[in-house]
Amino acid sequence: MTTNPLTVTIRRATRSDLPSIIAMLADDPLGGAREDTSNPLNSTYGAAFEAINRDPNQLLAVGERDGAVVACLQISFIPGLSRLGQWRGQIESVRVAGSVRGDGVGQQLFEWAITECRRHNCGLVQLTSDKSRTDALRFYEQLGFTASHEGFKLSLEVTLDKPC
Amino acid sequence: MTTNPLTVTIRRATRSDLPSIIAMLADDPLGGAREDTSNPLNSTYGAAFEAINRDPNQLLAVGERDGAVVACLQISFIPGLSRLGQWRGQIESVRVAGSVRGDGVGQQLFEWAITECRRHNCGLVQLTSDKSRTDALRFYEQLGFTASHEGFKLSLEVTLDKPC
Repeated sequence: MTTNPLTVTIRRATRSDLPSIIAMLADDPLGGAREDTSNPLNSTYGAAFEAINRDPNQLLAVGERDGAVVACLQISFIPGLSRLGQWRGQIESVRVAGSVRGDGVGQQLFEWAITECRRHNCGLVQLTSDKSRTDALRFYEQLGFTASHEGFKLSLEVTLDKPC
Repeated sequence: MTTNPLTVTIRRATRSDLPSIIAMLADDPLGGAREDTSNPLNSTYGAAFEAINRDPNQLLAVGERDGAVVACLQISFIPGLSRLGQWRGQIESVRVAGSVRGDGVGQQLFEWAITECRRHNCGLVQLTSDKSRTDALRFYEQLGFTASHEGFKLSLEVTLDKPC
């Protein structure tokens, strides 16, 4: 007998998904130290959701199973001159809830995301992953991604309530 | 006697800068195989320029000296939920013309770009650089960037003339 992977419905996120998404971002060795899961939700998340939602080149998506949000990611569609003026699809904030991890949900989420990137005529899909996330690095390689680049970050001091 | 670094004026790119920018993108071991410097310019570049220019979260900039474009980069301002709803400034397509390389132009360009990211209240500046660009990797580390992430890419087949 073979077990089929769990089927997940993937759709654009709505404002009411925000607590589930933030809980997933926080339920993580790196995210745990960076996020705030207090209830009511920190208003900075609401402002960020609106900024994402009103930008036609951003797509925040969730995976849902049995009415529960179990995965998320964000795609940024980025226009650029390089490679003959090729669009890029950039994937950030990928999370799969611990309860469904290992069930093929990440695979379904990425197949959906790559299809969205094709639909937007992106010639390249890109993402960075913290070097300490060894399972994630292996997962992206299995999906066909090539770790051809170094991913550099520089933190700046910010005032979180100031609108961009 | 000490030599002062050349002073470069950095400003938003205009359509008329496009041939100079494409020439810089192509004058590169990796870019040479990917770009098209034919005259008149391949129409895909014009379409890409318009997509960048009409997006308020994209900033394509050039560095100019004595009336000549000698450097370029693109900043994408990306809203996101991670890190308390922090904006990111992402830098792509960095080039400095061979004629002024080593004169501090890259440093000035990045100081300008990081100031722009602060002005947009970004909490993080990020970029990826091909692992074969050893000089660039050293330059970003000297600027204070940390190579904490793997940068993954996945190429897709695209129809370049199709609008996004």
